[in-house]
Amino acid sequence: MINKLINKIQKTKAPIVVGLDPMLSYVPEHIQKKAFDEFGETLEGAAEAIWQFNKEIVDKTYDLIPAVKPQIAMYEQFGIEGLKAYKKTVDYCKSKDLVVIGDIKRGDIGSTSAAYATGHLGKVQVGSKTYAGFDEDFATVNPYLGSDGVKPFIDVCKQEKKGLFILVKTSNPSSGEFQDQLINGKPLYEMVGEKVAQWGEDHMGDSYSYIGAVVGATYPEQGEILRKVMPKSFILVPGYGAQGGKGKDLVHFFNEDGLGAIVNSSRGIIAAYKQEAYAKFGAENFGDASRAAVEAMIADIQGALDAAL
Amino acid sequence: MINKLINKIQKTKAPIVVGLDPMLSYVPEHIQKKAFDEFGETLEGAAEAIWQFNKEIVDKTYDLIPAVKPQIAMYEQFGIEGLKAYKKTVDYCKSKDLVVIGDIKRGDIGSTSAAYATGHLGKVQVGSKTYAGFDEDFATVNPYLGSDGVKPFIDVCKQEKKGLFILVKTSNPSSGEFQDQLINGKPLYEMVGEKVAQWGEDHMGDSYSYIGAVVGATYPEQGEILRKVMPKSFILVPGYGAQGGKGKDLVHFFNEDGLGAIVNSSRGIIAAYKQEAYAKFGAENFGDASRAAVEAMIADIQGALDAAL
Repeated sequence: MINKLINKIQKTKAPIVVGLDPMLSYVPEHIQKKAFDEFGETLEGAAEAIWQFNKEIVDKTYDLIPAVKPQIAMYEQFGIEGLKAYKKTVDYCKSKDLVVIGDIKRGDIGSTSAAYATGHLGKVQVGSKTYAGFDEDFATVNPYLGSDGVKPFIDVCKQEKKGLFILVKTSNPSSGEFQDQLINGKPLYEMVGEKVAQWGEDHMGDSYSYIGAVVGATYPEQGEILRKVMPKSFILVPGYGAQGGKGKDLVHFFNEDGLGAIVNSSRGIIAAYKQEAYAKFGAENFGDASRAAVEAMIADIQGALDAAL
Repeated sequence: MINKLINKIQKTKAPIVVGLDPMLSYVPEHIQKKAFDEFGETLEGAAEAIWQFNKEIVDKTYDLIPAVKPQIAMYEQFGIEGLKAYKKTVDYCKSKDLVVIGDIKRGDIGSTSAAYATGHLGKVQVGSKTYAGFDEDFATVNPYLGSDGVKPFIDVCKQEKKGLFILVKTSNPSSGEFQDQLINGKPLYEMVGEKVAQWGEDHMGDSYSYIGAVVGATYPEQGEILRKVMPKSFILVPGYGAQGGKGKDLVHFFNEDGLGAIVNSSRGIIAAYKQEAYAKFGAENFGDASRAAVEAMIADIQGALDAAL
């Protein structure tokens, strides 16, 4: 799957991923109204609204981008109905040949991580049959529990040719509270990065590993260090746009081959029609606003890469 | 909710929680067969089997115990259908007046943690209405992202009078890989424990805080230290029984008031009928085997506490 991701990045010339993290407040009135007319102001109605919102954005952008990253929390907040919309979104994006990164940030003791890995990346046995639960292509994983909490995910990835992005240095303001603490003179995130590199070595695609890392766009200096610590790991970079990162800050997340990173934007793309720059599209044409925002993001990042490499 | 938990522990004289973590392989043949006859060997059939399994165990033990802890991964592995069984289990346990600790180990950047907190502990706004998604009483939370990843959970707990157990020192063999690393001479888990105590101070119930911690039964020495670091935090102690912990090893997780900890057993209770000690019950009477295992666990832990305090 890492080979497919790289192939698609090269074809689209777009090392970016669209974060499908819909808040109900991002969904234009006319979509909400239609969903509520059909299902009432219910969890089902909310789920229908975010699914229709996602579908329009995917329809208007899928030819420009290699991948999407639905954030499962945004669906989980609507309970079972929300998770049905998550699953519909995953399936629809796959039908459009997009690589789907499930932003699930799971992680637990071994047997429990194995269950998460089965549910999101693998297949579960039921009597004589097997079924895929959520069936994303990649998943994000939290490393706090150590190797035996991560390995069950790696095992399933090996079997299914899927991949991981493991949290190393997250994009939020207080990520340093634990992640930056020095251990023998080195910050914890670097230690986790070294582990990611180790785990990744045994699970290589053609040029990059199945096992990648998450490093926030908001920490470009740490990104430059971690790029060297994990030379063969793809870095998923959240925090572009709404959280503050810009293309020129991100060149050191990439290797000299112009690869090695994929930058996520969520709100900046999916709620583009609410920004002044794209207001001319109007709420009715929110999908076109998202397309224009994707084009601008690609130009910003690819431009910065072309200038730097 | 911490007051209710303590009240129930005192009434049942049982500082324990039953982990409802059903693997399909734990579910007796006759339950599986009935579910598969009705729904086929499908995800729906698997979900029905684990729900019926849970229901019988709850029916046979609810009067002895204060709380249950369903591990959501075990349901998530069966996709949407599995999560429906999770929700049914949560609701059923609440109808039996059990305190429900959702073992979800979520944690993300602020806005995303807010969505998880809303979905599991709070209420989500849909138009003019509000709905609870999963509606557990407590949730477990992963602290790797720092304060701003934890605070949205605390905010919802405050509003809803619910609680948290934050991962401090987990029960698995490789938990030390990152958690034991020394920072200025102190292990990371102690630093996290200090944060839990701080977060907890502002969110007190009558005698203990809404904000508790997870510390594995498999690390009794660390448990003794952390007990002192977080005097007002309840400690959820996984790893009893199947993972290796015993009652006498656990007395130092408690305070001198005989409170302050709640010990979880999952496989040891729910799959008791598979153990030699309870084989006499037979698979047909697996619920009675679980009841006997609960009684033995209470005697082991309460006995150790009575001897020590």
